[in-house]
Amino acid sequence: MEEVTTIALEQTEIINAIDTVWVAICAAIIFLMEGGFALLEAGFVRAKNTMSIIAKVIIDITFGGIAFYLVGFGIAYGNSNGWFAFDTGITNNDLGLSLTVSNKLFWFIQLGFAIAAISIVSGAVAERMKVWSYALFVFIFCAIMYPLVANWVWNPDGWLAVRGFNDFAGSSAVHAMGGFAALAAAIVLGPRIGKYQKNGELNPIPGHNLPLAAVGGFILWFGWFGFNPGSTLSAVGNWELIGTVVTNTFLASAAGGISTMVYTYFKYGQIDITMTINGVLAGLVAITAGCNVVDSSSAVIIGLIAGVLVDVAVIFFDKIKIDDPVGAIAVHGINGLFGTIAVGLFASEKGLFFGGGSDLLITQALGVLVIGSFSFLITFIIMTIMKKTIGVRVSRREETAGIDAVSFGVEAYTTFE
Amino acid sequence: MEEVTTIALEQTEIINAIDTVWVAICAAIIFLMEGGFALLEAGFVRAKNTMSIIAKVIIDITFGGIAFYLVGFGIAYGNSNGWFAFDTGITNNDLGLSLTVSNKLFWFIQLGFAIAAISIVSGAVAERMKVWSYALFVFIFCAIMYPLVANWVWNPDGWLAVRGFNDFAGSSAVHAMGGFAALAAAIVLGPRIGKYQKNGELNPIPGHNLPLAAVGGFILWFGWFGFNPGSTLSAVGNWELIGTVVTNTFLASAAGGISTMVYTYFKYGQIDITMTINGVLAGLVAITAGCNVVDSSSAVIIGLIAGVLVDVAVIFFDKIKIDDPVGAIAVHGINGLFGTIAVGLFASEKGLFFGGGSDLLITQALGVLVIGSFSFLITFIIMTIMKKTIGVRVSRREETAGIDAVSFGVEAYTTFE
Amino acid sequence: MEEVTTIALEQTEIINAIDTVWVAICAAIIFLMEGGFALLEAGFVRAKNTMSIIAKVIIDITFGGIAFYLVGFGIAYGNSNGWFAFDTGITNNDLGLSLTVSNKLFWFIQLGFAIAAISIVSGAVAERMKVWSYALFVFIFCAIMYPLVANWVWNPDGWLAVRGFNDFAGSSAVHAMGGFAALAAAIVLGPRIGKYQKNGELNPIPGHNLPLAAVGGFILWFGWFGFNPGSTLSAVGNWELIGTVVTNTFLASAAGGISTMVYTYFKYGQIDITMTINGVLAGLVAITAGCNVVDSSSAVIIGLIAGVLVDVAVIFFDKIKIDDPVGAIAVHGINGLFGTIAVGLFASEKGLFFGGGSDLLITQALGVLVIGSFSFLITFIIMTIMKKTIGVRVSRREETAGIDAVSFGVEAYTTFE
Repeated sequence: MEEVTTIALEQTEIINAIDTVWVAICAAIIFLMEGGFALLEAGFVRAKNTMSIIAKVIIDITFGGIAFYLVGFGIAYGNSNGWFAFDTGITNNDLGLSLTVSNKLFWFIQLGFAIAAISIVSGAVAERMKVWSYALFVFIFCAIMYPLVANWVWNPDGWLAVRGFNDFAGSSAVHAMGGFAALAAAIVLGPRIGKYQKNGELNPIPGHNLPLAAVGGFILWFGWFGFNPGSTLSAVGNWELIGTVVTNTFLASAAGGISTMVYTYFKYGQIDITMTINGVLAGLVAITAGCNVVDSSSAVIIGLIAGVLVDVAVIFFDKIKIDDPVGAIAVHGINGLFGTIAVGLFASEKGLFFGGGSDLLITQALGVLVIGSFSFLITFIIMTIMKKTIGVRVSRREETAGIDAVSFGVEAYTTFE
Repeated sequence: MEEVTTIALEQTEIINAIDTVWVAICAAIIFLMEGGFALLEAGFVRAKNTMSIIAKVIIDITFGGIAFYLVGFGIAYGNSNGWFAFDTGITNNDLGLSLTVSNKLFWFIQLGFAIAAISIVSGAVAERMKVWSYALFVFIFCAIMYPLVANWVWNPDGWLAVRGFNDFAGSSAVHAMGGFAALAAAIVLGPRIGKYQKNGELNPIPGHNLPLAAVGGFILWFGWFGFNPGSTLSAVGNWELIGTVVTNTFLASAAGGISTMVYTYFKYGQIDITMTINGVLAGLVAITAGCNVVDSSSAVIIGLIAGVLVDVAVIFFDKIKIDDPVGAIAVHGINGLFGTIAVGLFASEKGLFFGGGSDLLITQALGVLVIGSFSFLITFIIMTIMKKTIGVRVSRREETAGIDAVSFGVEAYTTFE
Repeated sequence: MEEVTTIALEQTEIINAIDTVWVAICAAIIFLMEGGFALLEAGFVRAKNTMSIIAKVIIDITFGGIAFYLVGFGIAYGNSNGWFAFDTGITNNDLGLSLTVSNKLFWFIQLGFAIAAISIVSGAVAERMKVWSYALFVFIFCAIMYPLVANWVWNPDGWLAVRGFNDFAGSSAVHAMGGFAALAAAIVLGPRIGKYQKNGELNPIPGHNLPLAAVGGFILWFGWFGFNPGSTLSAVGNWELIGTVVTNTFLASAAGGISTMVYTYFKYGQIDITMTINGVLAGLVAITAGCNVVDSSSAVIIGLIAGVLVDVAVIFFDKIKIDDPVGAIAVHGINGLFGTIAVGLFASEKGLFFGGGSDLLITQALGVLVIGSFSFLITFIIMTIMKKTIGVRVSRREETAGIDAVSFGVEAYTTFE
């Protein structure tokens, strides 16, 4: 009998080990997505602001990371009253999530989600936001704003979690959260000089290094295969789920890319390759909420819709003169919104289209609308306060000369011999 | 007794979990190789075609992925008569492979092999192929052509599998398959304007951004450490094999790089760094078939040969005026062929050089010749039909101006302020 | 009873499988760091030497890899007398490390550490060292020099291991080892032409492609999440430790980035973004020794100090006219030294600041001083001998024209149409 007891004890140790391997590797892959954001955004802006946007993503990681360590994690995953919790640092308490990994490792994977959300904002404020004001906003976002939403969605006692809100890897909690903050920030900042001409015409400002943006895009695409399946938080007991999540993630991204290619080809007579990268990302964002509960064919449909939606949204925001240099609002905000609602339509058990009635759909719509509105509103208020006090926008001179030269004293590319 | 039963049940669940972690991570790393292909090829072509080649790799992933989902997987891994199977989508049936991961996860890792094979072709047709014709070919290749070969080699009932053909991770099924399709496609397309001059001289067309190609090369090198060991499809029971595969994979790549450096230095008085990247890849391609059955020292020898073979092959194809902008035929076709045959020579049990007689060697030669011929022939036929109908080559005007400008309306790099 | 025995046997097999997955994936991620070194260094040098520095890193991998296979591994991990061992190739013997992975897989992860150490040197000798002389030094370093130090630190019978020296993932054995070799090599080579002017003024030579350097930086940052946690060498039994290591690694890097940003902003009125990338790396280097034994808050403090130390060190080496084009000595040498000593101060049990007395501190200081001095001295001797015989520095003409053009006959970027 003693041998049996020994084995049973080791069994627990083995489950911890397997899940730790799974979460540690997925978390590292998610962390790499920051490189993806930085390079995608850098390629999509002008050469003169390349290093400043990379600096902003480094600020997302560093200031955001310390904020999420000191304050954010406790608000998100402490003992919640449904709306928030209060703990500091990384607690040793049982978080009620039946974790089989250490709280520290759980912190590290959650960090990846927090800094992904704020990195969405860095794209929308590119080429015109003051660096220290941005750093302050990053701190507030990762210390308080994002953690509140994570609390609602992923804390076992969060009000949306309790209602059965299905946001598996964060179409709402990460992407809509980041995307609607990006929208508010872009509005308060106003468009870049010269983007919208006085006669109402649009002056397109193409990215300066599209292959660099492609490097970023491929890294993000790869990263999503940590982001979505890693959200299982454990492999033991989830072997079938992981296969489903991975397949759905791929299919939606492929369908998103194809629908953008076909749509832009028929609309403009040429495939828009910049938009195709965004179409792939849109498919990924849209499947992030429901990759655990939809069939493969639904994943394809969700991706196809996302790939068109992102094009339409980019055109729309340009029409209403909201300047988003990298399309972050369309990719993450609009497709985060769509993806969350799509769960209510396509979930294979509880979705409206599959005979599950409208309960889940209502919860999904409620959740994403509250999260999007919250993110938009608080960001709008903070940005407006900063605008009236420390300022949010670089000087006209700096914007013309380039943030790299003025705030960083550097040129991204030199031909110096 | 009940405790024991409980433990035994959990044991299965644990094996599933371990193997799922292994395959899911390796599959993600293999997927990232697409970024490697895209950036390697982009760096090796001219600036004016940079985004079009990245678009072609995105087409490999998206059109190829959907084709492999809708049609290809069923042909490859359904119930085979030795030559093909017929199923659609991702079946729930037992595939006869003793899988410990879900069919969906198995689909995702196999997808990585399918789109790697077609991505080899995208390099050889660079700078001159029409985008929609290419998309059609990608669909056919991933829906039917590649799956047939995968059926022969990796379906437990495939005719080559039954004969004991050893193509562990696909020197034949992926690399020779892609490389000989690339050869046929390059022949039907013809060389780029200006590559071979009327007086018979060669006009070298250097890559426009070699550091970008290096980014791609490093990503591919990394990816091979998912590609080869991931082909075990399970970690439980394979801990020694995984170590052997990883070590052989590294040693062949290092030897390939060294032999190219030394060879080009003595031949030209200068190390050819572009070719050195191809030498590393040649070593990787050549060890892919036999990394499970050769000794470390054999891996070094295989790599040394591959590193020279790729140089000789590049020169040869240029001599017979087959224009392959990135050297894909030499890297993947010739070294896929060599690597497959090398198993018959170097396998530590059944190889000719190790007293195993010629049986395995004959099977290896037969397999790769059939696969290479099949791939060459069918590609030649399809490309020729397309050439006579929808056309395969961009107009002279587009080729001169650049595919990026004409088909995509974009410039890879702008100095726009 | 037989069932129980069966299960117990399978248990071993399962532990092997879990640890193999862990080590194989971490080793692959560590291997990718070579791409990070190559691109970081390439971005930080001038365009005319871009491909030559990438070639040097490929030499690190290939020549270094073969050296570590033929000779190095046996010296490091064979049966040690406390100072060295002697075995060749990859032995099948029990290495006394209680490994649960195969010796071949252990070889592959150790290879990653060896070639990381030499890649530090490639940065410091950039833009002026002869390629074949460098290849010879790489071979000697990876065959003998690095393995001796690895023997002292990580062989269970090594003299530093026996004394309780805590260098978890190699602040000393990898980073100080590489950094002090880099210092000696930079001294023997002398500064690049034009770096220090006759009137004593410094002529800054900015990197030609900072976004490329950022690609490298992000890859290295990612790679550290294989490098540090992978140094556990097993996941079973280490699930809490892995969480601690990962969290400490992140926190030190974030703190390093922040302190460099704040420091350079207050010192120069502008954030130095190049230095910020180095600040992040400095934090990573400094936490590498102690990530297993310090608290989260200590990790933050170590990172904050490292981020300032790297700035001060870069200025210092420029002042004494030691030309290190990428800051490798400051990042790896100085912070490897600091990080090793920091363990003696901050270790939560045995550190001076936590009531552990000075024993560990003395051991740490002794270890890193011996390793740094050994590395500096032997490198100085070998480089000096090479200087007087085969030569170490390219000709004045080659240095002016660029190593790419003269030794490799290539241009990194062409505008050829």
